[in-house]
Amino acid sequence: MVNVGILGATGMVGQRFIELLANHPDFEVTALTASTRSAGKRYEDAVTWNLESKIPESIKDITVVETDPQQVKDVEIVFSALPSENAAVAEPKFAKAGMKVASNASAMRMEPDVPLVVPEVNPEHLDLIEIQQKKRGWDGFIVTNPNCSTIALVMTLKPLYDQFNIKRVYVSTMQAVSGAGYNGVPSMAIVDNLVPFIGEEEEKMETETLHLLGDFDGESVTDANFGVSTSCHRVAVLDGHTEAVFIEMQNDFEVDDVKQSFSDFKGLPQKLNLHSAPKNPVVIREEENRPQPRMDRMEGNGMAVSVGRIRKDDVFDKGLKYILVGHNTIRGAAGASILNAELINEIM
Amino acid sequence: MVNVGILGATGMVGQRFIELLANHPDFEVTALTASTRSAGKRYEDAVTWNLESKIPESIKDITVVETDPQQVKDVEIVFSALPSENAAVAEPKFAKAGMKVASNASAMRMEPDVPLVVPEVNPEHLDLIEIQQKKRGWDGFIVTNPNCSTIALVMTLKPLYDQFNIKRVYVSTMQAVSGAGYNGVPSMAIVDNLVPFIGEEEEKMETETLHLLGDFDGESVTDANFGVSTSCHRVAVLDGHTEAVFIEMQNDFEVDDVKQSFSDFKGLPQKLNLHSAPKNPVVIREEENRPQPRMDRMEGNGMAVSVGRIRKDDVFDKGLKYILVGHNTIRGAAGASILNAELINEIM
Amino acid sequence: MVNVGILGATGMVGQRFIELLANHPDFEVTALTASTRSAGKRYEDAVTWNLESKIPESIKDITVVETDPQQVKDVEIVFSALPSENAAVAEPKFAKAGMKVASNASAMRMEPDVPLVVPEVNPEHLDLIEIQQKKRGWDGFIVTNPNCSTIALVMTLKPLYDQFNIKRVYVSTMQAVSGAGYNGVPSMAIVDNLVPFIGEEEEKMETETLHLLGDFDGESVTDANFGVSTSCHRVAVLDGHTEAVFIEMQNDFEVDDVKQSFSDFKGLPQKLNLHSAPKNPVVIREEENRPQPRMDRMEGNGMAVSVGRIRKDDVFDKGLKYILVGHNTIRGAAGASILNAELINEIM
Amino acid sequence: MVNVGILGATGMVGQRFIELLANHPDFEVTALTASTRSAGKRYEDAVTWNLESKIPESIKDITVVETDPQQVKDVEIVFSALPSENAAVAEPKFAKAGMKVASNASAMRMEPDVPLVVPEVNPEHLDLIEIQQKKRGWDGFIVTNPNCSTIALVMTLKPLYDQFNIKRVYVSTMQAVSGAGYNGVPSMAIVDNLVPFIGEEEEKMETETLHLLGDFDGESVTDANFGVSTSCHRVAVLDGHTEAVFIEMQNDFEVDDVKQSFSDFKGLPQKLNLHSAPKNPVVIREEENRPQPRMDRMEGNGMAVSVGRIRKDDVFDKGLKYILVGHNTIRGAAGASILNAELINEIM
Repeated sequence: MVNVGILGATGMVGQRFIELLANHPDFEVTALTASTRSAGKRYEDAVTWNLESKIPESIKDITVVETDPQQVKDVEIVFSALPSENAAVAEPKFAKAGMKVASNASAMRMEPDVPLVVPEVNPEHLDLIEIQQKKRGWDGFIVTNPNCSTIALVMTLKPLYDQFNIKRVYVSTMQAVSGAGYNGVPSMAIVDNLVPFIGEEEEKMETETLHLLGDFDGESVTDANFGVSTSCHRVAVLDGHTEAVFIEMQNDFEVDDVKQSFSDFKGLPQKLNLHSAPKNPVVIREEENRPQPRMDRMEGNGMAVSVGRIRKDDVFDKGLKYILVGHNTIRGAAGASILNAELINEIM
Repeated sequence: MVNVGILGATGMVGQRFIELLANHPDFEVTALTASTRSAGKRYEDAVTWNLESKIPESIKDITVVETDPQQVKDVEIVFSALPSENAAVAEPKFAKAGMKVASNASAMRMEPDVPLVVPEVNPEHLDLIEIQQKKRGWDGFIVTNPNCSTIALVMTLKPLYDQFNIKRVYVSTMQAVSGAGYNGVPSMAIVDNLVPFIGEEEEKMETETLHLLGDFDGESVTDANFGVSTSCHRVAVLDGHTEAVFIEMQNDFEVDDVKQSFSDFKGLPQKLNLHSAPKNPVVIREEENRPQPRMDRMEGNGMAVSVGRIRKDDVFDKGLKYILVGHNTIRGAAGASILNAELINEIM
Repeated sequence: MVNVGILGATGMVGQRFIELLANHPDFEVTALTASTRSAGKRYEDAVTWNLESKIPESIKDITVVETDPQQVKDVEIVFSALPSENAAVAEPKFAKAGMKVASNASAMRMEPDVPLVVPEVNPEHLDLIEIQQKKRGWDGFIVTNPNCSTIALVMTLKPLYDQFNIKRVYVSTMQAVSGAGYNGVPSMAIVDNLVPFIGEEEEKMETETLHLLGDFDGESVTDANFGVSTSCHRVAVLDGHTEAVFIEMQNDFEVDDVKQSFSDFKGLPQKLNLHSAPKNPVVIREEENRPQPRMDRMEGNGMAVSVGRIRKDDVFDKGLKYILVGHNTIRGAAGASILNAELINEIM
Repeated sequence: MVNVGILGATGMVGQRFIELLANHPDFEVTALTASTRSAGKRYEDAVTWNLESKIPESIKDITVVETDPQQVKDVEIVFSALPSENAAVAEPKFAKAGMKVASNASAMRMEPDVPLVVPEVNPEHLDLIEIQQKKRGWDGFIVTNPNCSTIALVMTLKPLYDQFNIKRVYVSTMQAVSGAGYNGVPSMAIVDNLVPFIGEEEEKMETETLHLLGDFDGESVTDANFGVSTSCHRVAVLDGHTEAVFIEMQNDFEVDDVKQSFSDFKGLPQKLNLHSAPKNPVVIREEENRPQPRMDRMEGNGMAVSVGRIRKDDVFDKGLKYILVGHNTIRGAAGASILNAELINEIM
């Protein structure tokens, strides 16, 4: 068993890390950090637990410490659920102290020597780790996963990009309130309403997607060369982001080719049979009104993306439209970091 | 005062007709039709009133009759809130009997001799009426308004189409549950969920939009020649459709030009100062998170469309993105038919 | 393995039966009935599956038959999820044909020779079966469980009634929309709203509760002799009924006594270690804002009732107040019938 | 016109004050206070306006000042929408400075010399003002209105108390999220959920109700002598509190007597024809499923309480049950203070 820690363990994503790591075959949670206010308390006393599942018994009595590598002993991997501004400061300290940081924060994602990875999509970018360690003189390292809405999108783009090449992508999202954290969206804002704006979300989707599909030449990543345009919206859903995707392909295709491409898609996590890897990263729904967030977010234990309404779009020359649903705090956050760590643990 | 009737007066759109026509300066509701089951009852006894406003006193005691022109006496205009399949049968009978039918139903919209009109957008299509009457030998006639999500879209496209020309349009909608009628969307389908499919909605938006922006040469309408691609979704909002719009223009533009174009936009209803015409058909919101359906649906008494987040899109060559909100059962249904009737009443 | 059938297998409660009986150690679903429209189809084709879990593989290909004992072969127990009016006709036929009917329908609940049973509360009422069979000349029999909101209430009343005696009970419910069936509550009725009325619900709670706590003297049940008054309301929750309970006791008590009484409470299902029996039928939450339906409805796999805010009420002489949450379609419907069947299977 | 100010003008209740005072025939808003952070800004720049209506033009340019009587010039009445802890400090200063303070805050409500008034219920308590001024040496004074859920309840209890006398009252509430302020209830807490706890709400309802119905003997108020027990819950409704009320009367009654009592009920505001007074303080709904918060909260411009499902309760000796709905931020907050001020302005 590898000892792991969770940075920012009392927040919403921190809680998901704890839930998903309970009974993990390879990782054992032995350290939890949070703000100064929580440090020194038993985890059960420090947290306002907001998940339907219960706090695992083995976690309740762990004493929360400050987010400081000195306080986190005998840990090989730390998962970071820190707010971005804290992550920018803390994560390098943990890497310098020799720990492997699997981060869900956006702070370091676009650093040229920090791998931004979805294991099914671009595991080869992990080779940046060596460059990162050399350049920064770290014993540990930082690896990041993208934003929740990016992950779901890029998992469906990857097989299409490889097979048909992509010219441009338009995406309109309908995102769950959990993405903003427990207190992020007041009920007054969302009951009988929606909010057609999420700060910095569109920018993240547009840049991260191209970076993830970019080429790594052994030195650096060259972003993929097509256009991604997004419009991001918050709706009254608890968990599960839904995205309406319009794609112009470079190559001809039939709808059945696209379905085949989605069905056939397997990545390294599937080949290595990693613990958190869904059997099928992309699952096709044939019903005319699916996928739906409440019904499909837990597909593959929350680690698969569901796709439906796959149809041609006649406005683009070689146009395709579909709907996708992915779990934003599992596949889109905690589960993404865990799968990154599982892959690293297996191959490095 | 012109006597008017409402066909299908007990349903959701029928109720909106009654609400909007209360205290109308030119129209007086004197006839109400509904199904056989309701015929013979006082309106108050026949209806399950679902609006927050109350049934107008003058309406309560009107005896509901069957949807049959023989039963509807001394009425000049009938507003049709009939289901499409009933409208296909009933509306021609009323037109034949000499009545002016202002219909919200989809049945006759795409008939080549039936004007599909949004008064701010294509009032000149009303000249089809003469052709219709001649061809069909009717003393009355049928005029229709488009689908709720089309209306809001086309009101924003009209000034852009005139000024910058449009190459293609992508639209992703987040539509209110009232659009499906009172019993249309079960709460089990929409609490903590959304439904990414609305039957025939995408087809209607794609065809009606081009028809509305089409050229009328005195004989027939030639549809506008650009592409419209849509993805339609139902969300947990009571009233007010939200649409994320991506446009590729033919001509160069700056964002300020677009705002000016929206602000300057006035149509015939504004020039004629029609009773139900909003002062500004398109209202710009400058806040970063508006328009929102609950906050903005009643703009212009529910007859204006609110637009916000107007920004460039770099993926298209001359790309524009914005969000719009329009009230689906006022501007998008009952109010649309009433404005059509007001225009006809004024100019014919 | 005992072969079992489900009557009314395509509805909401029918689906819960299928979900809960998947992988059951003693029961194997071999027959499914539904309306004539569905008969002859594969179950997967006949049903609109509305649960987040998937249709068990072993069920998909079962051919649905009409609700007629002639069509249901080699089955020992049938679970009834029929609408009440159908149940009144069909259930006696199945009992007559020799099958054991575990019914969730209300039709036969208050028949004097039909046991209305919650296994933790009044298992001794099952002795009515012999009387029923003798009186009606049936080889099989009917056993029923109460209404969803009654079950959760009576499970908390039982230990209090035994220990402190009860003088009267006031209950105000906040009930989930699933209780009305998939199409029962339109979203227009419940978004930004609640409905303070549920047909016949108050009557059921008031009569069934006293019957469940009644004395069985070997011949018939004499209802418990205290007052129950209820007010029932529908709120925007998918699953899980919440009830605010006010009790006047006959005997003195302290809050800690009540907590002890709840904690100590175990019934026959716990003693017999029945498969679906929750370890603790009543679970105490100590947080000031719990139980909550979304957070606590799955307690004990949906078979336990969560209780919180246990406090004195000074308006009654010996007054107690608390909040309870129970899962309405598991403990309150399908799970209730299954536990009845497990008990019967064990002891008869 | 009387110049008035609003203390705490940028919060949710502050915004309601501004909305309700727009176009008031007697009061003109000339001063607005808020926290130090907002002081010095134009109101439109200081506020995040969250109401569907727009900021009145006359208000936008008012410069917000700190909540300090020195900063509030030439104002006769101030309305207080301050948080309770701030109100405790600030309100006495304004009264001392000679202003009439009509407060919605709870801080001073239970002070023996501060009138807690609902104009239809206990206008005679306003005579405490003279005692308050004498005792405290103030030129101005403070008058308060009760908590939102208390107001709606006590308006229905008043006619029953006068006519039938009351022995005890049980109330279970289903309260709107706006009662907690804009950021008070996270959407994560209320989508597919409810929260069966509202801090200090039950205590307020239980004490304030008896104080409002208490006898004023010219010196002090003696609380009414019956029991009130409450259980308070937050549900997914934006505005409008719903309460399920169970009453044991002292005297015999028939349901029709109760209805007559509600219908006949008029208070001083109705007799004086005050601007904000609803024509009927209590409005009866005869439909079996009304009142509902979304449908009925705006009754009497949000100033009336709607009552329905009036029925006997057989568990109490002389028991009555009904459902009420009242608008929590109009009748239950801003409108309550305004009606108090209108009454004072008229009679003092």
